[in-house]
Amino acid sequence: MTTDPRTGMTVLDEDACWSLLGSASIARVAVAIAGDVEVFPVNIVVDERTVVFRTGEGTKLAASVIAPRVAVEADGVDPARGRAWSVVVKGRAERLERFTDIYRAEDLALPSWTEHPKQWFVRVYCDQITGRSFQTASA
Amino acid sequence: MTTDPRTGMTVLDEDACWSLLGSASIARVAVAIAGDVEVFPVNIVVDERTVVFRTGEGTKLAASVIAPRVAVEADGVDPARGRAWSVVVKGRAERLERFTDIYRAEDLALPSWTEHPKQWFVRVYCDQITGRSFQTASA
Repeated sequence: MTTDPRTGMTVLDEDACWSLLGSASIARVAVAIAGDVEVFPVNIVVDERTVVFRTGEGTKLAASVIAPRVAVEADGVDPARGRAWSVVVKGRAERLERFTDIYRAEDLALPSWTEHPKQWFVRVYCDQITGRSFQTASA
Repeated sequence: MTTDPRTGMTVLDEDACWSLLGSASIARVAVAIAGDVEVFPVNIVVDERTVVFRTGEGTKLAASVIAPRVAVEADGVDPARGRAWSVVVKGRAERLERFTDIYRAEDLALPSWTEHPKQWFVRVYCDQITGRSFQTASA
């Protein structure tokens, strides 16, 4: 990890990024669809350096399986240390279709904001993870 | 506002969307750049149905002025009501260049996570605002 003495911003290494992402239950998925950009909050769980989330069938977010390149962002503030952090995973989103994959995903402790009758599981395979932390201005 | 009795999801009207967005100090800006999608957390303030944020000169986010179509998403949970909400503004991002515009932006109560020597103000003119709220599963 390297910290810029001028800005106080720290570039996080991969292990730190995965650790912080694993502590987040909510993230936002961004996807470019037909010249537009969509961004949605989702509940996530990290599973062996992939990101798993659920989405309702037929939602715009389900279109992420058509435009499989997605960015998943989570952020938070550690009040004790006065530092904010943000982590972004970029990668390929894949809807789980095989029963074994779906059963495995159902065993993950994936929180849900809401209940929908039909839900898909989507797994994001990471090409790149980046993160940074910085002192909050109020600290 | 309409609520789907099956899912408990409420589609928020524009006034409710702006009100919730105005209560948020952090949002995420998503932008499609050169076939990729970027998403960043920013501190925001709502000003007359536009969204204003700051970004450091030379950052990837500054590229949003090159790809001016952005989506800005904020979300939160109202624990008292057990309802989560998410609001998305889509529109055109414009970097402020005229002194009068910059002075006006500096008067906004725009919080900052960090301090950078050179910062740009970006204003997002809304083409579309959408939002929804839903009962959290734990409520």
